[in-house]
Amino acid sequence: MTETITAADSSQEGTGVAPESAHFANAETVEISARETEAGRRAYELDRAHVFHSWSAQATLQPMTVLRAEGSYVWDGEGRKLLDFSSQLVNTNIGHQHPKVVAAIQEQAGKLCTIAPQHVNDARSEAARLVAELAPGDLNRVFFTNGGADAVEHAIRMARLHTGRKKVFAAYRSYHGGTHLAVNVTGDPRRVPNDFGDSGVVHFMPAYPYRSYFGSTTEAEETERALRHLEDMIVLEGPQNIAALILESVPGTAGIYVPPAGYLEGVRELTRKYGIVYIADEVMAGFGRTGKWFAIEHFGVVPDLITFAKGVNSGYVPLGGVVISEAIYQTFAERAYPGGLTYSGHPLACAAAVATIEAMREEGIVEHAAWLGENVIGPGLREIAQRHPSVGEVRGLGAFWAIELVKNRETREPMAAYGGSSPEMNELVAALKAAGMLPFANFNRIHVVPPLNTSEADVRRGLEIIDKALEITDRYVA
Amino acid sequence: MTETITAADSSQEGTGVAPESAHFANAETVEISARETEAGRRAYELDRAHVFHSWSAQATLQPMTVLRAEGSYVWDGEGRKLLDFSSQLVNTNIGHQHPKVVAAIQEQAGKLCTIAPQHVNDARSEAARLVAELAPGDLNRVFFTNGGADAVEHAIRMARLHTGRKKVFAAYRSYHGGTHLAVNVTGDPRRVPNDFGDSGVVHFMPAYPYRSYFGSTTEAEETERALRHLEDMIVLEGPQNIAALILESVPGTAGIYVPPAGYLEGVRELTRKYGIVYIADEVMAGFGRTGKWFAIEHFGVVPDLITFAKGVNSGYVPLGGVVISEAIYQTFAERAYPGGLTYSGHPLACAAAVATIEAMREEGIVEHAAWLGENVIGPGLREIAQRHPSVGEVRGLGAFWAIELVKNRETREPMAAYGGSSPEMNELVAALKAAGMLPFANFNRIHVVPPLNTSEADVRRGLEIIDKALEITDRYVA
Ligand SMILES: Cc1ncc(COP(=O)(O)O)c(C=O)c1O
Ligand SMILES: Cc1ncc(COP(=O)(O)O)c(C=O)c1O
Repeated sequence: MTETITAADSSQEGTGVAPESAHFANAETVEISARETEAGRRAYELDRAHVFHSWSAQATLQPMTVLRAEGSYVWDGEGRKLLDFSSQLVNTNIGHQHPKVVAAIQEQAGKLCTIAPQHVNDARSEAARLVAELAPGDLNRVFFTNGGADAVEHAIRMARLHTGRKKVFAAYRSYHGGTHLAVNVTGDPRRVPNDFGDSGVVHFMPAYPYRSYFGSTTEAEETERALRHLEDMIVLEGPQNIAALILESVPGTAGIYVPPAGYLEGVRELTRKYGIVYIADEVMAGFGRTGKWFAIEHFGVVPDLITFAKGVNSGYVPLGGVVISEAIYQTFAERAYPGGLTYSGHPLACAAAVATIEAMREEGIVEHAAWLGENVIGPGLREIAQRHPSVGEVRGLGAFWAIELVKNRETREPMAAYGGSSPEMNELVAALKAAGMLPFANFNRIHVVPPLNTSEADVRRGLEIIDKALEITDRYVA
Repeated sequence: MTETITAADSSQEGTGVAPESAHFANAETVEISARETEAGRRAYELDRAHVFHSWSAQATLQPMTVLRAEGSYVWDGEGRKLLDFSSQLVNTNIGHQHPKVVAAIQEQAGKLCTIAPQHVNDARSEAARLVAELAPGDLNRVFFTNGGADAVEHAIRMARLHTGRKKVFAAYRSYHGGTHLAVNVTGDPRRVPNDFGDSGVVHFMPAYPYRSYFGSTTEAEETERALRHLEDMIVLEGPQNIAALILESVPGTAGIYVPPAGYLEGVRELTRKYGIVYIADEVMAGFGRTGKWFAIEHFGVVPDLITFAKGVNSGYVPLGGVVISEAIYQTFAERAYPGGLTYSGHPLACAAAVATIEAMREEGIVEHAAWLGENVIGPGLREIAQRHPSVGEVRGLGAFWAIELVKNRETREPMAAYGGSSPEMNELVAALKAAGMLPFANFNRIHVVPPLNTSEADVRRGLEIIDKALEITDRYVA
């Protein structure tokens, strides 16, 4: 595993581009005072009394307190330092408290915190310019939102009004957000309690080689069969009714299953053939997570709309948006776009995006993520897979990887049922935390999604923790 | 008009509580440099090339550039100083760049910008405590969102799952946000292009004395008839199908039409009688805008859910949320709430809310808004109404007032058609801007919605500008 490493000095490890931010990513010096832990205890009490949490049964929660965060680390309520292998909700691509982004927020706060969306603001203009510059093809216009869900809502609206059609095609095993329409295009169990059959969404089976819905045994077969299935569904639903197809370029929360070669190209072909707007949801996969600015670049495909959020400014200030092709822009050139929000193009959020993108460029953070994937995480996880019978598959790109845990490699029976948890997975997660890691777990999977500028040493330490902890799940292998 | 004024010193005017922030609200000293106007020109060009704006036909826009903002003033692209009588989108209740809020954002940015919603964070806990403390009755739990639309989306979800019903009652002449469900509960022309008849929303006629849908001639009659209409509709739609009724406590964008005495009490009675969740949308009316923390306090009513955003932190960082009653909280105590978002309870946004609420308390800003409404804006607008035949009605509370302009006082024919604009209104708006004001205009109305801590002198100056400009619309009176 270590053969691929050339640099011993941790300040020069990785791509050789030497992310400058690595210097603060270790943060060994942080000391948590008694006053801070006391404040954390009070925060916990108030949380339990007044804070209503996302996706949770409120009374049974025992949330972790975070007192501090820096680089790739967070400190819990007892002052314990944890390696952040979650990037929170896979959003702090640039790590915690990156000094350049913090400084930009502080400067913009002193200058102009907010201004209505109808006015012109320099931070907003510059953020739009940068996002347009990064986006592929003729996607040059940016509609800013507050996060990923509203980006998806507005992208769908643009597609519907552009096509004059209503239906939306979306994949099973996907996540697109929490508002009513966004959660209904979502293909995960969280949709079910919110599904009144009223959203005009049709779900199709995505290409997912490890658990093929088509009985495929090779990637090529999976691509071919998944595309045939998609076209069949389009034809059977009536293309003239279908406004949009929304697809995560690399589905994230649902399992970081990288599409097989040819699949996204085929999706682009089919959507073009039937006049359907192709929305690439890059909320999680975008802004360097996969080792490219947008995940779709891996596949050489240009969609009609891209939704983004998270990595655009690492979530330091809430921000999301839609990047818009020239054709769809033209639909709203002379005719009013019937959508908006008070904080569209929020100056503070946009200033954070500008600083984030600039820092990522200056420090070669996207290249570092690609390098980590190819040289550290990928090889490391493949070794882990060999050693542990509970690992069914490892897969990913850049700093975006999943470990799929199974009770049986032959049957691929998952270590926790789809949509659920299990004592085995809970035990594993507890062990990871006890060993000093903040993991990202979903059903039968552990995702390896550290900040993109995590140092090689820290990534290796994290992989070692995982390697050790998987002895637990190995015990449950049939 | 001046008889009601006791203090001559502008630092002591108003309630006598003397908003400390008044000192920076004049900002006479600001000088705009040539470099700044040059940067503004570049921002304008980039905006036209890359920024997609809310609610607009993109190619025909000529947006105003804002170079700076301070207190109750903004500076446009030419460095012209404008009195902000819009509070942007009625969100900067505390004025622009309030030093205490700016400092709190800068401090929190240096400490911890973001953390995932599942963890405990002190800024989030304290913001939830303060919001719960301000909210009426047993509304003690806070679900944070990024803005108003997602607050509305989640409030409706809570109501649907709490009741097991789907339909939502909402008023015509209302605004509730831009996402698909939120824009469909909205009762304004912006809903129409987004309405596929799929949202389960039923619109009813609100109490609106000036343009009564019920032929009422007194407020008492309007209350009685509007409530009878509402109950008729509930019965005819089937109460067992109705999850929620959503109503702005004082409808904002749709016309700041303060509900007549007894109306909201009646709505509370009816929703209780039929087991319908009463959602008070306080996104615009809340956080001091009407001279009370929540507008619903004027009516002594306790709803089941309150949606908020805007004034909670004056929009310095995107934030919204839902305040939740004990009964609805209990529905999700043991059963997972199927909703969430990456930035729920965002630390930076919550720190801004804590500082905003504290500053509003310390500086008596809510009391000042009430005082302005009773002693300056209300009497001032009533005098204006007497002088100008184009004024059909003035109405409001606190720093939340509308001037309804008509071509004919008898027929009440509006100066611009519902949902539209008119040359007369455009001329008026241009005159207000030329005279140094940034106004809030909607159809045939001008809203008087300055920051709550605007000095008495500035409010009077604004009213004088309006007084003068209304000579324009007077010319079009039949
Ligand atoms: C692919 C994708 N789309 C949309 C969203 C929704 O984003 P948000 O939580 O900011 O609303 C997410 C969040 O995880 C996501 O991963
Ligand atoms: C009463 C009301 N509800 C909801 C909203 C939507 O808020 P946002 O624009 O933050 O989504 C608004 C915005 O003006 C509003 O006035």
